Amino acid sequence: MLLESAASVFAERGYERTTIGEILTRAGVTKGALYFHFASKEELALGVLEAQMLDVPLTPQDVKIQELVDQAYLLTHRLQRDALVRASVALALDSGASEVNRAAPFRAWIDQVSEILTVAKARGELLLHVDVTDTAEFFSGAFSGIQAMSQILCERDDLAHRVAVLLQYVLPSICTPVLLNRVDMSEDRARRLGREYDANRLRREGGGLAEVYS
Amino acid sequence: MLLESAASVFAERGYERTTIGEILTRAGVTKGALYFHFASKEELALGVLEAQMLDVPLTPQDVKIQELVDQAYLLTHRLQRDALVRASVALALDSGASEVNRAAPFRAWIDQVSEILTVAKARGELLLHVDVTDTAEFFSGAFSGIQAMSQILCERDDLAHRVAVLLQYVLPSICTPVLLNRVDMSEDRARRLGREYDANRLRREGGGLAEVYS
Repeated sequence: MLLESAASVFAERGYERTTIGEILTRAGVTKGALYFHFASKEELALGVLEAQMLDVPLTPQDVKIQELVDQAYLLTHRLQRDALVRASVALALDSGASEVNRAAPFRAWIDQVSEILTVAKARGELLLHVDVTDTAEFFSGAFSGIQAMSQILCERDDLAHRVAVLLQYVLPSICTPVLLNRVDMSEDRARRLGREYDANRLRREGGGLAEVYS
Repeated sequence: MLLESAASVFAERGYERTTIGEILTRAGVTKGALYFHFASKEELALGVLEAQMLDVPLTPQDVKIQELVDQAYLLTHRLQRDALVRASVALALDSGASEVNRAAPFRAWIDQVSEILTVAKARGELLLHVDVTDTAEFFSGAFSGIQAMSQILCERDDLAHRVAVLLQYVLPSICTPVLLNRVDMSEDRARRLGREYDANRLRREGGGLAEVYS
């Protein structure tokens, strides 16, 4: 709750204009309670970046590269809904947040994509010349720019479409043609993944509340 | 000179932490001289964004899509050298710069790419299914994210390589195979364009100085 409040303030104001006072007001906690967990604004920002990175609820797929598609669409959905994810991406791109280590979230995203590509390559899903590191960095960088542009132009309303375009342009250059036919990169899949994610999240949060009140 | 000083401060500090005072010190001008041209920090930021957009020194090419490649490599070179260009891109992505219209530079970049793609399509250089607007937006968004990541990870040292990867992944999905063989997207071309740009710039600035002192 504290991190979510911090995230929503970071996402709205940018790092530099965010004040501890505004986070306290939004979270409804005292200064003492906050400083018990986080010694500074920088630590709050790192907390937001870490909380987001731990949570990647990806269902394993027979075609590994489908997981790359699903991850991109899930991130799209969460960028449209979840203040923690939104703030994490905003902080990583925020040139005012120079005291925060902004390379860390980029490296974490690149690592997640690299893991998927490494397995996909071992299974023969990728064209032989594909360099895993170059591709993972390209995909992470391109996605981050596309979501930033979508946010600036239309508050991310069209992000699923823009991600579909990214996938349609890039997957034919990295996957074997046979495999490409077995990958579903439609915006329909994006919508279905979004609905599943929301349902799971409600169940998880419902479960959490039941534990608290039992 | 004033805009270049403003640009270098914006690029280093981000919009929010930039002060008029620091720009005055760096430019070596008085407050009166600055306010004669720019009424506020916001107007200075808009001036930086506009100055950068006017200046695209692109040599026409027989293969139109070669101009897309050349534009990407020239922007790469200028991002590595030119404070005005660096500040312009940083301001467009700076979530702290909420009082500045950050959609304008994105639309200008998209328009530049769209113009090239529209001509390329009319000349039969593109695959039939290619949507010019989707592609121009994809290319602009992906480029902006890739350069931001390169800046954060290594101060843009590897940007030419990352742009080469972008081109290698995307051009086969938009160009006809015959045309693709006629496009030079090598990092060698990037280096040559960079050298030519520097030489032309020296000549222009030399000419400018000669005029001033004649």
